[in-house]
Amino acid sequence: MNGLDRFRAACRAEFVDRPPVWMMRQAGRTLPEYRALKELHSFWDMCRTPELAAEVTLQPLRRFPLDAAILFSDILVVPAAMGMEIEFLPAPSFAWTVRSRSDIGRLTFPDVGSSLKYVADALGVIRRDVGDTHAVLGFSGAPYTLACYMVDGTGAKGFTKTRAFMHSDPEGFHQLLDRIARVVADYLRMQVEAGVTAFQLFDTWAGDLAAAEFKEFAAPYVARVVESLAGAGAFSIYYVNGIAPHIAPAAATGADVLGIDWRIELADARSRIAAAMGGRLLPVQGNLDPALLFGSPALIRDKVKRLLDSTGGRGHIANLGHGLMPDTPLAGIEAFVDAVTTWPGAKEAP
Amino acid sequence: MNGLDRFRAACRAEFVDRPPVWMMRQAGRTLPEYRALKELHSFWDMCRTPELAAEVTLQPLRRFPLDAAILFSDILVVPAAMGMEIEFLPAPSFAWTVRSRSDIGRLTFPDVGSSLKYVADALGVIRRDVGDTHAVLGFSGAPYTLACYMVDGTGAKGFTKTRAFMHSDPEGFHQLLDRIARVVADYLRMQVEAGVTAFQLFDTWAGDLAAAEFKEFAAPYVARVVESLAGAGAFSIYYVNGIAPHIAPAAATGADVLGIDWRIELADARSRIAAAMGGRLLPVQGNLDPALLFGSPALIRDKVKRLLDSTGGRGHIANLGHGLMPDTPLAGIEAFVDAVTTWPGAKEAP
Repeated sequence: MNGLDRFRAACRAEFVDRPPVWMMRQAGRTLPEYRALKELHSFWDMCRTPELAAEVTLQPLRRFPLDAAILFSDILVVPAAMGMEIEFLPAPSFAWTVRSRSDIGRLTFPDVGSSLKYVADALGVIRRDVGDTHAVLGFSGAPYTLACYMVDGTGAKGFTKTRAFMHSDPEGFHQLLDRIARVVADYLRMQVEAGVTAFQLFDTWAGDLAAAEFKEFAAPYVARVVESLAGAGAFSIYYVNGIAPHIAPAAATGADVLGIDWRIELADARSRIAAAMGGRLLPVQGNLDPALLFGSPALIRDKVKRLLDSTGGRGHIANLGHGLMPDTPLAGIEAFVDAVTTWPGAKEAP
Repeated sequence: MNGLDRFRAACRAEFVDRPPVWMMRQAGRTLPEYRALKELHSFWDMCRTPELAAEVTLQPLRRFPLDAAILFSDILVVPAAMGMEIEFLPAPSFAWTVRSRSDIGRLTFPDVGSSLKYVADALGVIRRDVGDTHAVLGFSGAPYTLACYMVDGTGAKGFTKTRAFMHSDPEGFHQLLDRIARVVADYLRMQVEAGVTAFQLFDTWAGDLAAAEFKEFAAPYVARVVESLAGAGAFSIYYVNGIAPHIAPAAATGADVLGIDWRIELADARSRIAAAMGGRLLPVQGNLDPALLFGSPALIRDKVKRLLDSTGGRGHIANLGHGLMPDTPLAGIEAFVDAVTTWPGAKEAP
């Protein structure tokens, strides 16, 4: 099987020779060749220049035997397209933030085909260079997580202003999420039309919601985005950072695959998903602690083997449980990818 | 029942007229009378001056009908006593951090009776002023959470250096935790001897551990501290921020009460605890989203009622699921405390 076959089979919980592997944040951040490029171009320029975004996307595939390329971009391209001015210093800095209904009124409904055309163009270059041997992944921030940045500006204080807004004006907060979800759906449709194999919705901060608010403010908007793209031709992956208290509603969004963070044992998450879904095997992605890659190769190999043994390789996309950390040793990445690609677990079709 | 009776009964899962109530971070942060005092004294000075620490501890009890006073202090008094130099600017800033075994060797084993005498003195003032009508709570950071600050210095990046240290030198990290746990045990013994009704171990960052590492690096050190104080005369409360993936090992530490963060439904946490403990009712504390106090009084009252109804009031200390947020409206705090103290659920002993 090649990477594309393997990735598609995992998303359908069909037989694979071994789980496909990629890493959140594999593009950018860690590789020396990325850092060299960053000496010459700003982060924002790299996101917005199709050839540069494509180059950064492809760098990790030249170095490691990964099964998927993921678009190099940033989730904040959506708020930027909605009229918010954002600088990277390098932390994102917003010229204004959404603190009231009148601020919501300042947001625009962009024509993503023009304002985010550079993303479609980058995907075109990537798709052409990768050919049919690897999966190509697109992504967007999920509506709640994008709202976190749009309200708080930065996450330095745990996005508490967002939750305060949500509780003090629930209806206004729903209006904000509704607007974001519509733009996210348009944006992902454009990515699907540009040929992505799958798209991931990153709900990096939704894990910090109370259970009742996750069900009210996070899951329904993800479900709406996923539903609007059903049948469009790409798999959907819903990643929640801190999913443990929210497994049932996350599984019920209709996403094809659930991305699981590192805190919960993957086998435990799987059995809770199965309990919530009437026994159905929903494919999962994850979930090694990214900090583990600072450990010894022997430790990494042992943990990877336990992880893959726990799922038997079926319906499992091997990944970290969160993004690759800055300064991760290359030897740790190599040990991780190698341990997956040489896993001896699944030798033949059942 | 008075606050002290109510608090003790809740810690034993015995009958209460209604759950006792206090709030994490009730002392400091929000009250105007605290802010007025802070104009005159630095945070560190207030922690270290018994009369000032006692005054800040007692302020919220004068304003709200709370059942417990919690010592005004900071978890970083322990690393400071172990020889680390810390300034509050206002975020904590460490002159040096622990990144290697030789750094661990620089830490001292303090005689807490002298280096942290100001805490015992503050508790003496508080105990005298409060009398026997309210519970008095002491606290410490739990060993893993203290290690997070001692290794990373600040939490701006999610304490990733701590997890990297843990994975790259597990044995060295155990040495660090062992040293911290011994000092924490001494420190809490001093608090118990100064008359606290209960002490809380705050494991604010242990929820970010993977399940296997929580069992290896967080829970055993808490268990050791709790065990060393068994029979000393105070109840133990173990709070983990992000407890959902870690309920079984947290319950197995031997703590008398588990503090539950806001992300998981308290009834869900309770049933998972019962499953882990062979059906035993372990008292819980929590767990309203602190951001909820920015909502309308009607919303707050509704959520409090649902929360107390879900436990029936038994074996439950009403609290937030994390510390009171800066700038929380006093009207929100009032609505929360009033909704607990007027809850009509438990009228008579069963």
